Amino acid sequence: MNAGSEAMGRHPFDTAIALTAETPNRLHGHTSEDYWNVISPYGGITAAVMMQAMLDHPERRGSPLSFTLNYIAPIQAGDYAIETELVRANRSSQHWAIRLLQEQRVLAQAIAICALRRETWSHVEAARPEVPPADHCAVAPPRKATGFLQRYEFRLVRGKPFAENADSLSYVWVSDVPPRPLDFASLTALCDSFLPRIFLLRPDFVPIGTVSINIYFHAGEEVLARHGAAPLLAVAQAQAFSDGHFDHQGQLWGGGNNGEDTLLATTQQLVWYKE
Amino acid sequence: MNAGSEAMGRHPFDTAIALTAETPNRLHGHTSEDYWNVISPYGGITAAVMMQAMLDHPERRGSPLSFTLNYIAPIQAGDYAIETELVRANRSSQHWAIRLLQEQRVLAQAIAICALRRETWSHVEAARPEVPPADHCAVAPPRKATGFLQRYEFRLVRGKPFAENADSLSYVWVSDVPPRPLDFASLTALCDSFLPRIFLLRPDFVPIGTVSINIYFHAGEEVLARHGAAPLLAVAQAQAFSDGHFDHQGQLWGGGNNGEDTLLATTQQLVWYKE
Repeated sequence: MNAGSEAMGRHPFDTAIALTAETPNRLHGHTSEDYWNVISPYGGITAAVMMQAMLDHPERRGSPLSFTLNYIAPIQAGDYAIETELVRANRSSQHWAIRLLQEQRVLAQAIAICALRRETWSHVEAARPEVPPADHCAVAPPRKATGFLQRYEFRLVRGKPFAENADSLSYVWVSDVPPRPLDFASLTALCDSFLPRIFLLRPDFVPIGTVSINIYFHAGEEVLARHGAAPLLAVAQAQAFSDGHFDHQGQLWGGGNNGEDTLLATTQQLVWYKE
Repeated sequence: MNAGSEAMGRHPFDTAIALTAETPNRLHGHTSEDYWNVISPYGGITAAVMMQAMLDHPERRGSPLSFTLNYIAPIQAGDYAIETELVRANRSSQHWAIRLLQEQRVLAQAIAICALRRETWSHVEAARPEVPPADHCAVAPPRKATGFLQRYEFRLVRGKPFAENADSLSYVWVSDVPPRPLDFASLTALCDSFLPRIFLLRPDFVPIGTVSINIYFHAGEEVLARHGAAPLLAVAQAQAFSDGHFDHQGQLWGGGNNGEDTLLATTQQLVWYKE
């Protein structure tokens, strides 16, 4: 079915985040094999569809500013519902709560802020690492032949999984497969495309799972539209691995093919690991 | 009234976060002049009391792992209610939603995770900056004679407000006034005690307000108890100021007086600024 949609010109990402509205506050979706992970959908696609549910809401004004999602339990293959609540709208911002459910059980909960972007004094203090342009970097062979890893192209610039790395800092050019113009849903998904930091420090596979992801958006629709389908530079590093959880801090930089280096989003996540 | 409580030996922080239960899921609190900010309570005390509401819940198991709070609108001086919802409990973790209300209006919403901490391989990748011990650093004169700034002692090591700084990176020793043994509520409050980054880059005051704060806890009760009432080293830096909002990333390090340098929490926040 997904392959069929793709043949008709629809990107598998758009199929994966497609929703039908029962009411403005309750939408229905269906998991996608194209973005499947080991035992449930790829966390990034779950984040993207919850973001999209908010974006699709008839009362939504402004663009996403802050988005935090806590993953509660695995989502089973099949149908799910998303409930959105506009908790409060101020003059220039909106506060949302979003939940994903299967059979009345909440499997993920998010809170988010949308706001009107205003012209102000601006300054990017973070520096984009100096790296070769994306098209000068080799595409890494997919780690798996199925699932969501097929839906991204990774070009590793610094940091290799299960190798000797001095630290967990990595630079990776990442893009959708097939290429797709960037929007807030795909940027949200890309914020979960980072390699788990523990794979950069330890030689063997360890079971892991993201429990919380936080995203701040530093650019509006026009900047994302201008970026188009070019690769993004993904930068991330862990701060601490302790007592079964580790964090990372990440940045997503635009301008893969056009020389611009725009900080599109910063993101943090907390990841469970087995031992 | 607060002064009275203090005279009787109760710390003003404990008075400020005191709650009475109407039901396990609905608690009542009262704003505190001791932690007042310009037009509403200090954001850190609001975060702390919402954290405390979860900690006090009879069904709470495990210790805080992740806590995200979005500030929606100013809280008026007076009574407020906090509603807690245990969205889901798994074997080793709990997912919570917490809201603060006045007159049925939601003024702040949070989501949080509690978890049992497990012995695992652990590694702190972040490095604590090399700074002189707290008692070698001068206490900064309070920026204001009233409100929450009286309730913290700041010893500025790097970065001065409204001065020429090369960047927004700051190191500050911070502690409760009067000293108080650290716990999850006070650590939560301390995560909002950072100087607004914009004050480190621009020469004049700009109106600001935190809209979202995210905290990952990297230590359990025993580590916090061992820390006691010693100062914490607070490290923070912004990544981007754009279109009316800026972020910062922060770290809170323990071990102010005993030579240990333990990463207790990492935190991010997004702050509105006027122009």
